[in-house]
Amino acid sequence: MLLKVDQVYVIKQKYEQYVEFMEKNYRPNFTYADFAPQFTAEFYDPDQWADIFKAAGAQYIVLTSKHHEGFTMWPSKYAWNWNAVDTGPNRDLLGDLAKSIRNRTDIKFGVYHSLFEWFNPLFLADKESNFTQKAFPGAKTIPELYELVNEYQPEVIWSDGSIAAPSSDYWGSKDFIAWLYNDSPVKDTVVTNDRWGPDASCAHGDFFTCQDRYNPGVLLPHKWENCMTIDSKSWGYRREAVLADILSMDDLTKTMAETISCGGNLLMNVGPTHDGRIVPIFEERLRQMGEWLGINGEAIYSSKPWSHQNDTLTSGVWYTQRDGAVFAIVLDWPESDVLQLGAVTLAADSKVFMLGCQDPLKWSQPADGPLHVAFPDLTQVTSRWAWVLKMDGATPVSGEENRL
Amino acid sequence: MLLKVDQVYVIKQKYEQYVEFMEKNYRPNFTYADFAPQFTAEFYDPDQWADIFKAAGAQYIVLTSKHHEGFTMWPSKYAWNWNAVDTGPNRDLLGDLAKSIRNRTDIKFGVYHSLFEWFNPLFLADKESNFTQKAFPGAKTIPELYELVNEYQPEVIWSDGSIAAPSSDYWGSKDFIAWLYNDSPVKDTVVTNDRWGPDASCAHGDFFTCQDRYNPGVLLPHKWENCMTIDSKSWGYRREAVLADILSMDDLTKTMAETISCGGNLLMNVGPTHDGRIVPIFEERLRQMGEWLGINGEAIYSSKPWSHQNDTLTSGVWYTQRDGAVFAIVLDWPESDVLQLGAVTLAADSKVFMLGCQDPLKWSQPADGPLHVAFPDLTQVTSRWAWVLKMDGATPVSGEENRL
Amino acid sequence: MLLKVDQVYVIKQKYEQYVEFMEKNYRPNFTYADFAPQFTAEFYDPDQWADIFKAAGAQYIVLTSKHHEGFTMWPSKYAWNWNAVDTGPNRDLLGDLAKSIRNRTDIKFGVYHSLFEWFNPLFLADKESNFTQKAFPGAKTIPELYELVNEYQPEVIWSDGSIAAPSSDYWGSKDFIAWLYNDSPVKDTVVTNDRWGPDASCAHGDFFTCQDRYNPGVLLPHKWENCMTIDSKSWGYRREAVLADILSMDDLTKTMAETISCGGNLLMNVGPTHDGRIVPIFEERLRQMGEWLGINGEAIYSSKPWSHQNDTLTSGVWYTQRDGAVFAIVLDWPESDVLQLGAVTLAADSKVFMLGCQDPLKWSQPADGPLHVAFPDLTQVTSRWAWVLKMDGATPVSGEENRL
Amino acid sequence: MLLKVDQVYVIKQKYEQYVEFMEKNYRPNFTYADFAPQFTAEFYDPDQWADIFKAAGAQYIVLTSKHHEGFTMWPSKYAWNWNAVDTGPNRDLLGDLAKSIRNRTDIKFGVYHSLFEWFNPLFLADKESNFTQKAFPGAKTIPELYELVNEYQPEVIWSDGSIAAPSSDYWGSKDFIAWLYNDSPVKDTVVTNDRWGPDASCAHGDFFTCQDRYNPGVLLPHKWENCMTIDSKSWGYRREAVLADILSMDDLTKTMAETISCGGNLLMNVGPTHDGRIVPIFEERLRQMGEWLGINGEAIYSSKPWSHQNDTLTSGVWYTQRDGAVFAIVLDWPESDVLQLGAVTLAADSKVFMLGCQDPLKWSQPADGPLHVAFPDLTQVTSRWAWVLKMDGATPVSGEENRL
Repeated sequence: MLLKVDQVYVIKQKYEQYVEFMEKNYRPNFTYADFAPQFTAEFYDPDQWADIFKAAGAQYIVLTSKHHEGFTMWPSKYAWNWNAVDTGPNRDLLGDLAKSIRNRTDIKFGVYHSLFEWFNPLFLADKESNFTQKAFPGAKTIPELYELVNEYQPEVIWSDGSIAAPSSDYWGSKDFIAWLYNDSPVKDTVVTNDRWGPDASCAHGDFFTCQDRYNPGVLLPHKWENCMTIDSKSWGYRREAVLADILSMDDLTKTMAETISCGGNLLMNVGPTHDGRIVPIFEERLRQMGEWLGINGEAIYSSKPWSHQNDTLTSGVWYTQRDGAVFAIVLDWPESDVLQLGAVTLAADSKVFMLGCQDPLKWSQPADGPLHVAFPDLTQVTSRWAWVLKMDGATPVSGEENRL
Repeated sequence: MLLKVDQVYVIKQKYEQYVEFMEKNYRPNFTYADFAPQFTAEFYDPDQWADIFKAAGAQYIVLTSKHHEGFTMWPSKYAWNWNAVDTGPNRDLLGDLAKSIRNRTDIKFGVYHSLFEWFNPLFLADKESNFTQKAFPGAKTIPELYELVNEYQPEVIWSDGSIAAPSSDYWGSKDFIAWLYNDSPVKDTVVTNDRWGPDASCAHGDFFTCQDRYNPGVLLPHKWENCMTIDSKSWGYRREAVLADILSMDDLTKTMAETISCGGNLLMNVGPTHDGRIVPIFEERLRQMGEWLGINGEAIYSSKPWSHQNDTLTSGVWYTQRDGAVFAIVLDWPESDVLQLGAVTLAADSKVFMLGCQDPLKWSQPADGPLHVAFPDLTQVTSRWAWVLKMDGATPVSGEENRL
Repeated sequence: MLLKVDQVYVIKQKYEQYVEFMEKNYRPNFTYADFAPQFTAEFYDPDQWADIFKAAGAQYIVLTSKHHEGFTMWPSKYAWNWNAVDTGPNRDLLGDLAKSIRNRTDIKFGVYHSLFEWFNPLFLADKESNFTQKAFPGAKTIPELYELVNEYQPEVIWSDGSIAAPSSDYWGSKDFIAWLYNDSPVKDTVVTNDRWGPDASCAHGDFFTCQDRYNPGVLLPHKWENCMTIDSKSWGYRREAVLADILSMDDLTKTMAETISCGGNLLMNVGPTHDGRIVPIFEERLRQMGEWLGINGEAIYSSKPWSHQNDTLTSGVWYTQRDGAVFAIVLDWPESDVLQLGAVTLAADSKVFMLGCQDPLKWSQPADGPLHVAFPDLTQVTSRWAWVLKMDGATPVSGEENRL
Repeated sequence: MLLKVDQVYVIKQKYEQYVEFMEKNYRPNFTYADFAPQFTAEFYDPDQWADIFKAAGAQYIVLTSKHHEGFTMWPSKYAWNWNAVDTGPNRDLLGDLAKSIRNRTDIKFGVYHSLFEWFNPLFLADKESNFTQKAFPGAKTIPELYELVNEYQPEVIWSDGSIAAPSSDYWGSKDFIAWLYNDSPVKDTVVTNDRWGPDASCAHGDFFTCQDRYNPGVLLPHKWENCMTIDSKSWGYRREAVLADILSMDDLTKTMAETISCGGNLLMNVGPTHDGRIVPIFEERLRQMGEWLGINGEAIYSSKPWSHQNDTLTSGVWYTQRDGAVFAIVLDWPESDVLQLGAVTLAADSKVFMLGCQDPLKWSQPADGPLHVAFPDLTQVTSRWAWVLKMDGATPVSGEENRL
């Protein structure tokens, strides 16, 4: 979702495969706006979505309220005839989801919002003028943000697209942010990311999003988020996606472990269909992630980074801590059922558990040697894809970490 | 096209027959904006339109560049995704017509433009505030007008909809008009009507339009226009129109005679189809009007009102003058081929011609009596629907006129 | 509607302008069958149609129940999913018209039906086999005819397309005709044309249709029909038709006069729109024809050819007779209001009337000279486009006729 | 796919939820046939399908060439304008798949074909006559079958719908079958199922399909097939399907084990989308099944039922045999990693392997006691969902089986 400046230009080129697809399947001169009435959302069931997100173990969700094409999912006064009420679904998709999320779950309701718009002629004219002219933000994108906050009280505002202009001054985002934190109806609850100006990225904000799929592999001094998407090739729904494009649960638990261990949050994106559905392959991944978190969430929710992020001896092992315990998230079942850890020293009376298993695990540690942990019989194991060890009395061994 | 203030409110009611039509023929929740991609204009041929208008004898044409629904026929920056390039025809319908008109004819190119928009949420919010808030004109309608003038240099601007707000101040139309006449690219050529504010109607402007189908039947002191439409029930194209709804040539020549005699211009409207055509019944009326004007235009073009507007003795006779001659437009062929006129005294050597006939007509006038004019044999007559007598040396008889 | 044999082959070529139109306005691979759901007939009002046909003075109407594309206007068992009930209008268009015609008028209800179908694979396979194989007629077209007659009792069956096969034997039409006249529910009332086999055309049938727009200009020994169409270029509705393509009332009264005088019936076709309308330009022609027939019908309905078909001296004059009177249909108003007729000798006490005028006309005839008839003042004339003289005591003068 | 006679009547009732869906999302009077142009198959890639089927380990595939709605996936002469070439995809979907399957795989290409059609008016008329009239089969369904065989040489013909008529005589299927096996181009290769007449079901045919999802749980004396579908609620694609509707791999391996052990074949159905795709959730199940068969196929392909079908002591264990070895398909990993089998006696030198693991397993068997097999460490196990033991020197113990 982050666009480097030259990508803003790139967008004006037409990707050959999409041009060809349009030529094969649509009448000549069919425009992007002509698609709007085909966005029908007849299967949209926000209660069902809320239930899936809850089953997935999500703590906040972020709906794309408006992407770079400028179409708003709520009936914005500033996007007349280019929103989900005036054309297509004829329904306030955003408002209805907010209600379902709040009625059925404890999940925080957030919104993604793009400051910039690919094809908006007011933006293009501003750009043409080298941004000496500033008609667009005041006419469109900033009023939209006020409207969003006043109407729907989102608890996360996930801004995007600021980098399309050379400075935050163009967007006028500072005034909005000042209002948001001081005077808005969500001043006491809202958090925002960092994409409010090209200079703010990875520098200002409640949490940093830096760039899409940001996953540094090292501990960062400021709260950050890894936003990624289950379809490895797209944020939006692609009808042509095949199974090979969809991340596996091994991929997803690995990303989760890496992200959490380094102090990040994970935002897992799924693109819904034109008729309002989350397709079964995405529902499966979300529910499987929920299954995993149901067993292993203690190592994730409210956890903090530990002194080590990953193990010094065995790769694919990532650490977190919480309430005095250290958690090792193990991505691969160890050979001969025995895991060796180089970064941990246990106390004599330390106990080691695998989350989801009843009995403590056997362990041993020679002086100055690595910790050996015996993994349990399969019938005792409830977790799939990755397994979490919970250790008390653990202290760190100094040493160089295995990197991402 | 003129809306009385309470009509502005009426529009929010739904007319039962249209609601029923939508229910019978469209999916539920189909919106007005959903129609846009079905506006395809695949048969639009502006050269053909220009040729029809020329054949009709038109001296200026006025395209509806934007009606109250806000959809612009040119790619306006201020009507993004709600204009004929971004959706539907994918073509600058206005620009292409301007070119054809200018390349092929001497007709003046004009544009109708509605200041107000029925459903624009910015306008509705201003109205909600009792117009204490003025967001809409500056964001939408006034910038559009500048854009229209700068891009297309229209020679007529036919404004509409101003009465939807309580004063001209709301619209800010004065500043625009000042620019239009003093600094715009059309400052030396443009003419405008009177609908720039509720107080301007019938009071200010190059020509007054007062109300739709305005046809006072008496001479007015200021140039005015009778704007009417060939489909008696609609300005826009109606698929359900039947022949009985279409004005006949008798209706049209009558309206022409009444309007011109009283100092007005006549604007005859036809509504084109979604696929860009002027349907044959309208083409027929336009070409027939051109046929009539080809014979009788001398009494119309560059003519002035005479001292009498219509005859004192025989109804259905309307007068104009030009270059010293007086013209009587006769709507009904006289009984026994002899017309009596009460408003005219001829000189002894006066000549009377029927336009389109070679030979002068026989006439006689007893002292203080009405003029008798003998109408010619049918084989000499070329005009249909109405006939024009051209008289030199004619002076008016005082007396009360037959009214409209 | 008649196809010469090589036209059957021609149809497989694609006309360039239609190919181009499809390429410009439709997705690639859009098929003819894909159009079906766009045939919606939402404005179809068979009562209104019946009223127009009545106002037009029609004595029988012929609905195209199925043209060469095979789509039936009634729910035929033999055209499953390719008829107006199964797709598109979802309505028995034929049945509903039959009811309206019979409830509101005395007009005879007839049906056009094409034996052959351009693209039917069963027909194409038969043709491929040089018609040694005869799968198509028995599977499709003949059962349809039985169904039509049994369900709707048409009083005219206007067959077409037989010439696409080399002989009547292929079609099996003889058995059908035998049943039609001997055993069918319409055996006492039905009439049919001649297109039941390539050898039947202009040779067998209640009335001969020979070829489309057949208008021989001479008296034929057998009842015949001139089937023609008001859009000079098409039997079906063409959106792109312009006024110049539409026959004028001068054209139509001329065709009427020529046809009736030579013993033919006139079938004037109009093509309705996809949404079920007869457009105003066609309605206008039909009602104008009705206006003409309302005045002049005495010369047309139940008339017979006279000894002369047209005048020997003045062209554009066509004769009929009825109940002892001779009628001269005069297409052009005569110079100096006097018509000369070379084919008629009047008796001393003969009277000459113009239909629609009260008073008898003055006439004179020098011995062995042509008849002179003085036409009346315009205010007495009620007919337009063509005028009919009714003469009693008229006898023919031998002489060569002016030809068509 | 099998319809009991009273279901044939049930189909004429309208299911409330579908009626409601149509009312909410389509114009009134939208028909089933009106959907045809929306069946576009733009993403249809038969090479990709062939690769998925190959990856799934399929040995034959069966395309629904025509279901009960009568729409054919090939350009049938007998389904004019109601097939995938004449409308919608404009492509021979069947022919293209046959080519891809044959070019890229060793999979046998088969076709499903419904004798009866829900709404075909010829069938309905036959039914109305209590099948005394037999117009439909000879006009439609039997010629289609000849066409299918002659054009595409399928190796499986999977007939359906015969039960809608009271006897095989109505369908005339015997003659077709006689031709198929004696004279057709596939006489040496084709196999067919049993649904050729209501009396043939479960009684005649190369393999019996009896009823949909037939899974008797006991050994049958004749080859049979369990046809089932991965969406537990539908054979066709349902947009509204949620994950809970999709069978899991545990479900599928269980069904596979039960079916194969009892002498059946398994036909796993997936419904493709209107745009020609096999959606990722189905692709995942198919590829996972292929993964499982890649490891365990030795127990499935070319296997035969054993003397026992499932174990007498431990439920969820199903037997097959091949080349002297006995295979136990174990659906649940045993408690404490030790499986007990009551139906098998091993010889002293018997070896037991788990398919996909290198080393032989430890086993023991007390005299007259059950066999104990020690399952391996997880790191040696490659199979998921179900595991197969291969045993040589195994003999059956008599005893009652655990049933399905």
